[in-house]
Amino acid sequence: MDLKKPYLLFLGDAADPLAAKVAQGIKQWHPEYCVGQFRLPECQADCGLPDMSISEAVKAGAKTLVIGVANRGGVISEQWLDVLVEALEAGMDLASGLHNRLNDIPALTECAKANGRQLFDVRYPTQTYPVANGRKRTGKRLLTVGTDCSCGKMYTSLAIEKEMRSQGMNVDFRATGQTGILISGSGVSVDCVVADFIAGAVETISPDNSDDHWDVIEGQGSLFHPSFAGVTTGLIHGAQPDALVLCHEPTRTHMRGLADYSVPDLKECMEANLATARLTNPDVRFVGVSVNTSQLDEAEAMSLLDNIETELELPAVDPFRQGMSRIVKKLG
Amino acid sequence: MDLKKPYLLFLGDAADPLAAKVAQGIKQWHPEYCVGQFRLPECQADCGLPDMSISEAVKAGAKTLVIGVANRGGVISEQWLDVLVEALEAGMDLASGLHNRLNDIPALTECAKANGRQLFDVRYPTQTYPVANGRKRTGKRLLTVGTDCSCGKMYTSLAIEKEMRSQGMNVDFRATGQTGILISGSGVSVDCVVADFIAGAVETISPDNSDDHWDVIEGQGSLFHPSFAGVTTGLIHGAQPDALVLCHEPTRTHMRGLADYSVPDLKECMEANLATARLTNPDVRFVGVSVNTSQLDEAEAMSLLDNIETELELPAVDPFRQGMSRIVKKLG
Repeated sequence: MDLKKPYLLFLGDAADPLAAKVAQGIKQWHPEYCVGQFRLPECQADCGLPDMSISEAVKAGAKTLVIGVANRGGVISEQWLDVLVEALEAGMDLASGLHNRLNDIPALTECAKANGRQLFDVRYPTQTYPVANGRKRTGKRLLTVGTDCSCGKMYTSLAIEKEMRSQGMNVDFRATGQTGILISGSGVSVDCVVADFIAGAVETISPDNSDDHWDVIEGQGSLFHPSFAGVTTGLIHGAQPDALVLCHEPTRTHMRGLADYSVPDLKECMEANLATARLTNPDVRFVGVSVNTSQLDEAEAMSLLDNIETELELPAVDPFRQGMSRIVKKLG
Repeated sequence: MDLKKPYLLFLGDAADPLAAKVAQGIKQWHPEYCVGQFRLPECQADCGLPDMSISEAVKAGAKTLVIGVANRGGVISEQWLDVLVEALEAGMDLASGLHNRLNDIPALTECAKANGRQLFDVRYPTQTYPVANGRKRTGKRLLTVGTDCSCGKMYTSLAIEKEMRSQGMNVDFRATGQTGILISGSGVSVDCVVADFIAGAVETISPDNSDDHWDVIEGQGSLFHPSFAGVTTGLIHGAQPDALVLCHEPTRTHMRGLADYSVPDLKECMEANLATARLTNPDVRFVGVSVNTSQLDEAEAMSLLDNIETELELPAVDPFRQGMSRIVKKLG
């Protein structure tokens, strides 16, 4: 799954800024991928990119219109169809991470076919993957893992990639979820592959590489989340991580969506992840803790980070407040 | 996925008895489901059932023709098609656990539609499953886990179900792979569901039940097999087992298919399975060890079982040599 760049970001009729968070993410991490944004009159979001019509975007070089907005239920709105058809006819591909598929809408599939364009539903794997072989690969790998789902693993991974790149290191972000795929332009949504191929899919997106190269692999789920730990386990085994970064959201009172399951202790969580990861890489180690302190004030955040750092003897940072340089230093 | 019984077992052109092991399994565990067998002239296998033509089988009450033979590559042979079409026209459904699908063969799908019959490709889930909710269910559950893949988990589970049933216990076998589904007539092939729904599929096939009821759930893979441990993890979490039985094949020199991965120590394997299972059932415990000693002579087997029993302080039996009564006793 490789999206052609640059993108026109489609913000559609976003009801508020949060509805366009996928577009915001692409703009934040890769402004150089974005020629502009397309907004319908009622749009309540703004990525700060030039507003463009379809024909203006094509003139500016846009190769793919990326749906960067979600509405309730993840559906592709009737209201969007005219624009999407216009983009296909003007020569752009379409990409979407929504639950409902572009490829299930006859008006789009017919138009894409007639114009030789592609429709990318990045949530759904289009290739088959091999069963994992567990063979040790060349190059180095960092994987983010979490105390819970949705606690900052993608953000942390992108922040680490950015820091490493700024230091001139040889690095690639490897996306394992739909938003990460849209942001980086490639990857696999591992929770959507057939169960037998979870680890094999991760081996595939993180192949042999040069000795100085790092893959920064986006984690998914948590070993402590009873709905998704199977995905997490396969992802860890396929990643063969040399380095792990633990991601944590300190204000959560229970595991996401499951009131009866408590968030694990950080040390217990680290031990479980190390035990799992050692199967395919006995030399795995933690290099840091990434804490999303957005719900805390500055003093609370710094005190919490200090405590974690003392207890775990690892750099503990908020990627938004402090950046990732202290964790990246541990990779040397 | 519920197959209509009784079955006509299709042995086709089996090249040797091993090629018909699925049919043998059905006959072994549920002879009462089988009215007869269908063999082509060149068939080299025999389940010891009456040979029947399609019309004889229909007269004897057969509702489903089950493909109980595998040929190289798991394909559905051209040679079989005439018989399969005849069975559909005579009023039977078809069921197959092969990799290639009955539902991909137009001659069969058209004939099934014209005759109001169903084609069951039991390897491929036909329903969607919810994401697991981790809610503690009523009733009791036993799950088989293994040091490796293909080390006797299905056989052990079926032997436990049979022993419990013979003692008048309230029990159901829950199949999680294609052969188990064909043997028992229902279940889900968990390694073929989308990764997000592994645990949810297992929750679905093992629902709330009466307090005295046991589900005996067929395990898959191994926490120590780097290709499939994600499936195993999701299965364990969805099963919420009260009781675990460890399955082991003592002559294996490395993990199946992976020469670089050694088979885990039994105690280490038990600890890892308990740690994983405790997430959804803190009271989980091991009740026995099931060892496939078919490669050992009687004296070697008994000595090995004695040693395991002493080391682990649990009944260690070969289900084929000794049956499951000592393990079932531990459930009381």
